[in-house]
Amino acid sequence: MEAERLAGAVYVGVIGGRRCSGEIAELAFQVGSGIAERGWILVCGGMGGVMEQACRGARSRNGVTLGILPGNSRDRGNSYLSCSVVTGLGEARNVLVVKSSQAIIAVDGSYGTLSEIALANAAGIPVVGLRSWHLDAAQNDGQGLFTREVHSPTEAIEAVRSLIFVSK
Amino acid sequence: MEAERLAGAVYVGVIGGRRCSGEIAELAFQVGSGIAERGWILVCGGMGGVMEQACRGARSRNGVTLGILPGNSRDRGNSYLSCSVVTGLGEARNVLVVKSSQAIIAVDGSYGTLSEIALANAAGIPVVGLRSWHLDAAQNDGQGLFTREVHSPTEAIEAVRSLIFVSK
Amino acid sequence: MEAERLAGAVYVGVIGGRRCSGEIAELAFQVGSGIAERGWILVCGGMGGVMEQACRGARSRNGVTLGILPGNSRDRGNSYLSCSVVTGLGEARNVLVVKSSQAIIAVDGSYGTLSEIALANAAGIPVVGLRSWHLDAAQNDGQGLFTREVHSPTEAIEAVRSLIFVSK
Amino acid sequence: MEAERLAGAVYVGVIGGRRCSGEIAELAFQVGSGIAERGWILVCGGMGGVMEQACRGARSRNGVTLGILPGNSRDRGNSYLSCSVVTGLGEARNVLVVKSSQAIIAVDGSYGTLSEIALANAAGIPVVGLRSWHLDAAQNDGQGLFTREVHSPTEAIEAVRSLIFVSK
Repeated sequence: MEAERLAGAVYVGVIGGRRCSGEIAELAFQVGSGIAERGWILVCGGMGGVMEQACRGARSRNGVTLGILPGNSRDRGNSYLSCSVVTGLGEARNVLVVKSSQAIIAVDGSYGTLSEIALANAAGIPVVGLRSWHLDAAQNDGQGLFTREVHSPTEAIEAVRSLIFVSK
Repeated sequence: MEAERLAGAVYVGVIGGRRCSGEIAELAFQVGSGIAERGWILVCGGMGGVMEQACRGARSRNGVTLGILPGNSRDRGNSYLSCSVVTGLGEARNVLVVKSSQAIIAVDGSYGTLSEIALANAAGIPVVGLRSWHLDAAQNDGQGLFTREVHSPTEAIEAVRSLIFVSK
Repeated sequence: MEAERLAGAVYVGVIGGRRCSGEIAELAFQVGSGIAERGWILVCGGMGGVMEQACRGARSRNGVTLGILPGNSRDRGNSYLSCSVVTGLGEARNVLVVKSSQAIIAVDGSYGTLSEIALANAAGIPVVGLRSWHLDAAQNDGQGLFTREVHSPTEAIEAVRSLIFVSK
Repeated sequence: MEAERLAGAVYVGVIGGRRCSGEIAELAFQVGSGIAERGWILVCGGMGGVMEQACRGARSRNGVTLGILPGNSRDRGNSYLSCSVVTGLGEARNVLVVKSSQAIIAVDGSYGTLSEIALANAAGIPVVGLRSWHLDAAQNDGQGLFTREVHSPTEAIEAVRSLIFVSK
């Protein structure tokens, strides 16, 4: 991590379940690769499934991955973390994953992921959804879950890029 | 709080927005009253809106209300708290509201409330929804947001009662 | 807890080890009794040892006790809690015990207790020490650990009373 | 950060005050340099004073620095962080600094630093003290604050090295 990269470091979160299908794993891998190719730091919860595959993708492109772990040791973190934080906070660490990200890509995911999407919305952090939760916005005063809903890893990266430039 | 009550203390969470319409305020008040009438302890985030109205309802029936505050002082807590905890955790205190409840009633609410609903689902804590978030379950492998969706405070209290007996 | 008590509710923390000798247990019991006799709410970490004995003392005088638990359930909280919060934060809940107290009495205790004494000092919350950590202040620019060091439960209660009036 | 480094990544914490004298700043700088020279990752609270100087030292040797920030944005973090986490937890983030370190070097510091030293002791994480808190151990059943008390940055690094090998 050279000084130049530090100055303009961009943190992008990837959220999703601890377990995932092979198809979702492939999407997560590509999302991670795309983040690394852009030179962004990938932030995640540091565990398996979508998190692990995204980190694997980022590492395959020599990217930097930051894992914010729920437990009391690094033992259960995935093998593709450049750096990790041991929080001991359990699910409360979801809040840190969200706050540490300038934009977030949600890939698939269950209720833990939904809590992060909601927290990001509450905090005004843009969230891009790829095969993730769908909300029938018509029934909630038009509040949706995603700043943008996309259909491929390439689109996800592109959406983040435009959102970060805009939100800056 | 007599010893007998302590032994079988039941904690029921009420979640919802810091601001709400007059109509929602009235529903929250009745939910709080119903919780106190059953002898349950009302747990909430301690702030205004739905939280305050529910606490006001509970206090009007001599109930006990516990507020888990996000900030660094008690100054901004509502006036109807029997007891409060100062966390300084910001939105991460949502996790504590959820974990401290055996069942939760969601009344209206925005993204903060949705994060709590999601965290409760992740933790296996039953959530009753009253005029709150609606999810188009068909699009998420049938995962819904609520253990039960109800249409009145009376129904909400009754649902909690049956859920707590069942989950015990 | 009547309305009058609510308005002027005073929260006093009791900190100390999860295990203690019979002699320390008796001191903790008397500290808890004294807190309840004054009508103050006793705040603690909710576990055994000094915390449990102080709560037992407070309950013997019909006092209100608030336990801020480190784990993910109420199962391991002591039997003398009027109210409890389930945090799942592990030792990070020490910060909440400190922030929720207007003044703190430290009775005996090990490193966990020392962390709370230090956090209270950092936050400007007065701490009264009874048979607790001793610091050789001369070697640290005169910084001591306690606002006041006392020799009996009665003195501890009296010190808290004067400190709270002063700090108000 | 190459793959080889990742596999055997060693995390060493540096704790101390947000403000410090020029003399302490120089010691902190050398501690940071020494950590980087060994190829260890420097963990800290991400703010000014001892934290900033240690990070500056580490960066001067192309080291990796991880800052665990108390606030809600990266704005107030120091300029020498390779990676940072935004926690929004206030002082509760001290627990994360401790848990994320395999060994800790305390340089000077006030009560916040003392809380971290105490938490590390409670968690069994070795702490090396350099010009930091002194405890008159004779008065506390012989419990001291430091695994080892040292007199120079070189000694501090050497102590950490031997402690990490032993604790492994």
